[in-house]
Amino acid sequence: MGKRIVIALGGNALGSNLPEQMKAVKITARAIVDLIEDGHEVVICHGNGPQVGMIQNAMVELTRSDPEKYIPCPLSVCVAMSQGYIGYDLQNAMREEMLDRGISKGAATVLTQVEVDPEDPAFLNPTKPIGPFMTEAEARALEKDRDYHVMEDAGRGWRRVVASPEPKSIIEIDTIRSLVETDHIVVACGGGGIPVFRTEGHHLKGAAAVIDKDFAAAVLAKQLDADLLIILTAVEKVSIHFGKPDQQDLDRLTAEEVRKYIADGEFAPGSMLPKVEAALSFAESAPGRETLITLLEKARDGINGKTGTIIV
Amino acid sequence: MGKRIVIALGGNALGSNLPEQMKAVKITARAIVDLIEDGHEVVICHGNGPQVGMIQNAMVELTRSDPEKYIPCPLSVCVAMSQGYIGYDLQNAMREEMLDRGISKGAATVLTQVEVDPEDPAFLNPTKPIGPFMTEAEARALEKDRDYHVMEDAGRGWRRVVASPEPKSIIEIDTIRSLVETDHIVVACGGGGIPVFRTEGHHLKGAAAVIDKDFAAAVLAKQLDADLLIILTAVEKVSIHFGKPDQQDLDRLTAEEVRKYIADGEFAPGSMLPKVEAALSFAESAPGRETLITLLEKARDGINGKTGTIIV
Repeated sequence: MGKRIVIALGGNALGSNLPEQMKAVKITARAIVDLIEDGHEVVICHGNGPQVGMIQNAMVELTRSDPEKYIPCPLSVCVAMSQGYIGYDLQNAMREEMLDRGISKGAATVLTQVEVDPEDPAFLNPTKPIGPFMTEAEARALEKDRDYHVMEDAGRGWRRVVASPEPKSIIEIDTIRSLVETDHIVVACGGGGIPVFRTEGHHLKGAAAVIDKDFAAAVLAKQLDADLLIILTAVEKVSIHFGKPDQQDLDRLTAEEVRKYIADGEFAPGSMLPKVEAALSFAESAPGRETLITLLEKARDGINGKTGTIIV
Repeated sequence: MGKRIVIALGGNALGSNLPEQMKAVKITARAIVDLIEDGHEVVICHGNGPQVGMIQNAMVELTRSDPEKYIPCPLSVCVAMSQGYIGYDLQNAMREEMLDRGISKGAATVLTQVEVDPEDPAFLNPTKPIGPFMTEAEARALEKDRDYHVMEDAGRGWRRVVASPEPKSIIEIDTIRSLVETDHIVVACGGGGIPVFRTEGHHLKGAAAVIDKDFAAAVLAKQLDADLLIILTAVEKVSIHFGKPDQQDLDRLTAEEVRKYIADGEFAPGSMLPKVEAALSFAESAPGRETLITLLEKARDGINGKTGTIIV
């Protein structure tokens, strides 16, 4: 029987520039349309690290070229642009792969905002570098004039750093649900979503932040009442003692086991740790919900219980 | 009784930079939510001239800053980014205005591609300037290396020029229809849509072109079987003998009258002419279809027959 699946694509599913992206999305589409052919409903989340970095760099160069005319572009607006930039290629690759196989579903990209909490502790200590390298003087000027957080980046120059707060809810959830229920493959929460605060009741304000796509996908999967969250990454299975002689690949994990391994420091921060945390948050949110962590090309086998790591 | 309405916003509905846009969309939203309050279904098209120009300029500056790393960004991709850039503000303004009035419809932006014909004569003679001014040497290099069309622009320097072909069909029409039918206000065909050619059957390829938003809105209105197309512009009514002592404002026009006035040269090319042509193409596409041309703030009165020019 078909499941409702939210897939969080890894960085390699998109490449890091436009020519790479146009090739990568075709491979990505093949693996995802396999799942659609098996009768599953699919919603796709993706990251945007290199892409929003490139757009942010372009907007910085634009301001540098004519500071009178062009004010710096807010990061939330750059995320919105990156959803257009990536969604365009990704939905077309899905559309073409489906039509190649005689499947006539729609493929759609929904511009998606994700609510974050202005009190999120991540805002007190922004650590995610974004945009071009600068001189210290340029960085200090942005710090003074625009309240940016800046940081010296490993001897390579200064960069802006932003917070990566926890996603709370998907503003366009009803739109995404409407499209899933009318037989669409939906690309949503691109780049983790456009981060927004709620102000004055229901008004929204863009936040200078980036949201982790795996956490955004977990929230989306919960709000869509999905059966399965798939977090695609660069390894086939989650491991303990990773990279050591006694490395042990894991097939199936309970929430308790995941929590124990996290406490034992088995997962690298900034790498596997946020993935298993996102996996856990969905898997333990209601009975029957599971998260699969595996490679893109193993997703179909993973759903069929043949590989990957499943968190129940 | 509620009508299904496609609205083509004029350039002043968005402003020409980000601070202007954030203010303009609030005023735009008020006028459009008036129509929603009256029980109409609304789909919004918008232009993107200044915005896609800015994005194109930013991508050119990015390539200039590091030509090894960044290849020039195709225009179709810049249009996709502009749909994110504008849709984000526009859908939020709609959402907030609706919630302020206790209306709980969704507001969504659909990334939209619009098919154009590679044999369209517009491609033989591209005339729409886009992107930054260049030296003749820079322009000639782009002409040679990238097959760009370039043109000297009134003594101000050289610019790239692109074609403005006729829109044939909306690729994401089913997505837009699904959202309209599940009670959404949809922003679609932003900037006239991402122009694409069909290649190898159902495959799509981005075209280096921009589509007129009024013509795209007319195609969208036909494909959605809308009752009314509203083309918002800078005048309350269409006139003949425009700007002359005997100027005559028009309340109601039949297709035959419109064709006669077009033949008489009553409407300025690049200004009112494409608007009345778009209006005509929708109004005469099926019985009962009408187009209203008026000011944003007169849209409600226009629907109620109190002002504007209606083409039947």
